[in-house]
Amino acid sequence: MHNPTAHKRIVIIGGGFGGLTVARSLQEADVTLIDRTNHHLFQPLLYQVATAALSPGDIAWPFRTLFRSQPNVRVMMEEVLSVDRKARVVRLQEGQIPFDILIVAPGSRHAYFGHDEWESWAPGLKTMTDAVQLREKMLLAFEEADRSRGTAIAQEYLTFVIVGGGPTGVELAGSLAEIGKRAMSKDFPTLPPEALSIILVEAGPRILSGFDPELSAKAAQALVRMGVTIKLNSPVRAIENDTVRVGEESIPSRNIIWAAGNRASSLLKSLSAPQDAYGRIKVRADLTIPDDPWIFVIGDAAHCLGSDRKPLPGVAPVAIQQGRYVANLIVQRLVPERRAPFAYKDRGMLATIGRAQAIAQFSSFHISGLLAWLIWCFVHIFFLIGLRNRARVMLEWIWYYVTFKPGAALLFPREGPPLETPSPRDDSQT
Amino acid sequence: MHNPTAHKRIVIIGGGFGGLTVARSLQEADVTLIDRTNHHLFQPLLYQVATAALSPGDIAWPFRTLFRSQPNVRVMMEEVLSVDRKARVVRLQEGQIPFDILIVAPGSRHAYFGHDEWESWAPGLKTMTDAVQLREKMLLAFEEADRSRGTAIAQEYLTFVIVGGGPTGVELAGSLAEIGKRAMSKDFPTLPPEALSIILVEAGPRILSGFDPELSAKAAQALVRMGVTIKLNSPVRAIENDTVRVGEESIPSRNIIWAAGNRASSLLKSLSAPQDAYGRIKVRADLTIPDDPWIFVIGDAAHCLGSDRKPLPGVAPVAIQQGRYVANLIVQRLVPERRAPFAYKDRGMLATIGRAQAIAQFSSFHISGLLAWLIWCFVHIFFLIGLRNRARVMLEWIWYYVTFKPGAALLFPREGPPLETPSPRDDSQT
Repeated sequence: MHNPTAHKRIVIIGGGFGGLTVARSLQEADVTLIDRTNHHLFQPLLYQVATAALSPGDIAWPFRTLFRSQPNVRVMMEEVLSVDRKARVVRLQEGQIPFDILIVAPGSRHAYFGHDEWESWAPGLKTMTDAVQLREKMLLAFEEADRSRGTAIAQEYLTFVIVGGGPTGVELAGSLAEIGKRAMSKDFPTLPPEALSIILVEAGPRILSGFDPELSAKAAQALVRMGVTIKLNSPVRAIENDTVRVGEESIPSRNIIWAAGNRASSLLKSLSAPQDAYGRIKVRADLTIPDDPWIFVIGDAAHCLGSDRKPLPGVAPVAIQQGRYVANLIVQRLVPERRAPFAYKDRGMLATIGRAQAIAQFSSFHISGLLAWLIWCFVHIFFLIGLRNRARVMLEWIWYYVTFKPGAALLFPREGPPLETPSPRDDSQT
Repeated sequence: MHNPTAHKRIVIIGGGFGGLTVARSLQEADVTLIDRTNHHLFQPLLYQVATAALSPGDIAWPFRTLFRSQPNVRVMMEEVLSVDRKARVVRLQEGQIPFDILIVAPGSRHAYFGHDEWESWAPGLKTMTDAVQLREKMLLAFEEADRSRGTAIAQEYLTFVIVGGGPTGVELAGSLAEIGKRAMSKDFPTLPPEALSIILVEAGPRILSGFDPELSAKAAQALVRMGVTIKLNSPVRAIENDTVRVGEESIPSRNIIWAAGNRASSLLKSLSAPQDAYGRIKVRADLTIPDDPWIFVIGDAAHCLGSDRKPLPGVAPVAIQQGRYVANLIVQRLVPERRAPFAYKDRGMLATIGRAQAIAQFSSFHISGLLAWLIWCFVHIFFLIGLRNRARVMLEWIWYYVTFKPGAALLFPREGPPLETPSPRDDSQT
């Protein structure tokens, strides 16, 4: 059993909401934060980057900037391969980092229920890379539809199929409907707005099943009003060659987006601790793994039971509260027997559908429509880190609310043109 | 000889300052604007995207949004391969576009004086793609230097060599010095600030040779104060294996940036009109090519003599004034014999070195330092298109001026992680 005294080496894997909260709460300790990127991502607004409403810089913060005033935190941009519990080290692609206390918060990726081959046809939305690629695909789709006007191909480009009726799927469907039907119809006058088809496919009997039925019904009505087609009780049978098979129906689409399943990072296997069906570690009441009171697993990676004995959802508030709980245990150096079990305080749930459309559920108190949307805006602005990003995002939202002009609809090739090929470019130089 | 009557098909190649000005000035005509990207780029601020001070969305505007209120302009995101003067068509990778009046404004790329193999070691800065790649390279360089602390490799990563003492080179050197020495030294406390080496290499006897000698001397002093090493009369002999050879000296650097030469788009060859050493078309007094009074060449692509009989520089004001001139000829349907020659009004030159450091030259009136910098800021904010971008950029500049925190220092892999590889990521989900 490890029981920390002073100067323990604390290693945090993953700088999401959970890992970041732990690092920021440990002002004294010797902390190493490892992430494969150099920035914290405000994932709840990622779909707005994907739909070109926000720029990547609006919802992400370089770790090194975040920790400027915290010299006790060392940031490493590295890929963690595994955790060696015996040797008490985290193995990287190059070298390894020893730890006395480990916080494992690697998050999750989207999962395809054992059909990984679907990913190439239906990418998901988890990382900034996903978002930027999805945005490019969406913007190019309209250009391609314009090129192939009137053909069946054009219709495939103008058909968006979102698989999964959870918050991400609903937010994507809603903002695609808005940006597509209104903004794009202005930018592509040659494309008939009615040709745009946005289909939300959900395996279960209703969307936003985490919410109260009457609220998810309101959300569904709002989506339909916005022109989204919702297919309930429609598990996906197959996805291939730009076609989704749902029941007996085949939907051809060049824009299939996966927002259905999640799977915890495969890094967790190396902890050799019990996992659930989604690969999450079944943590104990103090968020540690069996027989190892100083290895914590938090956030999407943790299978942690709530007061209703159901596993807590993979949302930011859970990860943040778990991060605070773990940081507190570490600061107080609490030995296992003196630890109170982690208890999640549910402050309510929010989901946005579109402009002036959202639902909010605070225990018994339910709202929908404009008021819920204003609360949603306020909460998300509030939780953004830093004055700059709050100002930028607010500016973007007000701007978009008024003009319907998405702020970040840029396309540029990944590689610059080779030196001697024709380059009709905007190169008036400095 | 073509002489336009009503309903002529006007085709514009390139949506830079020149091409955009023509399109915006033709409210009636049937206009097709072809660009390889979907956006106009405010190239004078591109170096700020490269140094992570601004986001791409801050200095670029999708054409389709710009022309929402101008249904007479058709936008095509296409690569132009050649112009067929006989057939009066522009050839694309797929298909061709017929024209009666053609405006050729494809801009220029950086050129390596016949050493194209240098490009792989010393990329240039012309397009948004260039800027984003340069930014990623710069940000990664500090991460790599941190990993290889104390080794010779680390020093190579902390050495920035900018080839070319023109405005772009000076702006890059200045902002790299600032962001490097101040911001980055805060983000990478383990890296000694003095290890950062920024070297500006100029073949000629002084930097900013377009300016009055006493002003370029002031700029040089400012750069030196900021810690930039300036090497004058130092033509580059070779660039290979992350090493620049200048005279007898070899400088190892993982960050070699090319800001020296330009070459007009090779598309111009197909016009089979006289070109100068830089590939620019030697246009006539009305900016047309010989024997073809309805094919205009403007901007960086045009070799156009100024009042001093020297070719006009490749700067935005020249392209914009040429665009207005051409649009006016077209609107008035002026036959060649009734055209007044194009005359460039030089409203002065500005170059910025860094925070509160710039030089300005208005004919006989010269300024430097804070006042010149304020003028520079004002002018650039003023010429940005649209309220939104002005507000965003101003916000960024004020923010950066106060905090020294660059706004857009994000790194994310180009490809998302494969589904089952370890992914220590910040994926707290929605």
